[in-house]
Amino acid sequence: MKGLHLTADLRGVDPALSLMTDPVSLGTRCSEAVTAAGLQGVAELMHRFGPADGQGGITGVVLLAESHLAVHTWPELGAVTLDVYVCNYGGDNSTKAERLMAALVELFEPAEVSRQRLLRG
Amino acid sequence: MKGLHLTADLRGVDPALSLMTDPVSLGTRCSEAVTAAGLQGVAELMHRFGPADGQGGITGVVLLAESHLAVHTWPELGAVTLDVYVCNYGGDNSTKAERLMAALVELFEPAEVSRQRLLRG
Repeated sequence: MKGLHLTADLRGVDPALSLMTDPVSLGTRCSEAVTAAGLQGVAELMHRFGPADGQGGITGVVLLAESHLAVHTWPELGAVTLDVYVCNYGGDNSTKAERLMAALVELFEPAEVSRQRLLRG
Repeated sequence: MKGLHLTADLRGVDPALSLMTDPVSLGTRCSEAVTAAGLQGVAELMHRFGPADGQGGITGVVLLAESHLAVHTWPELGAVTLDVYVCNYGGDNSTKAERLMAALVELFEPAEVSRQRLLRG
């Protein structure tokens, strides 16, 4: 269960971006990014805060065969936090994790990114 | 979106513990621990690998009003990884996060725990 956990905390994201408030759009784009990075999604859950047709933030996850991707949006702050965690049980997934995180950050076009990197297990 | 992200990677966990392979039991105990720590669960997703009645590991999450809890079990390795991430948007949730992580670690009775702590946002 050795693995790599990447975090990226974004600021200066346009609150009008559909990914900030539309859980269907966010879930679809996250799952597409997982597949494009060569990782395997096994389940997905996106929760929007506030009214169903409102402009509340989203908290969500894509569970992976290799661990998980998590995302939280704060449209009121123009902020997003991202986690990509992969275990290296069946092979080294570090490059795929880096590729996935790069794609996710790019989706949100942030003005600032604060990144951290944990070796786990 | 300032916050605290705690990780704990556990080894020496008894693979026969129901939490290692039973997603219903794991989801229930995680949600109970969330409530007991004074945090608010908003949605839950647990995925078991392998056959439905099998002894595969579980990957899961409880989405929180304050961010998320994630758990991955590897019964074949006697290993578990845990994440508790809280934002401090409406108040400082750090103490609640520490309390939740302590309760989760205790559930698994590990022989070894490797902990990390990230300040985020």
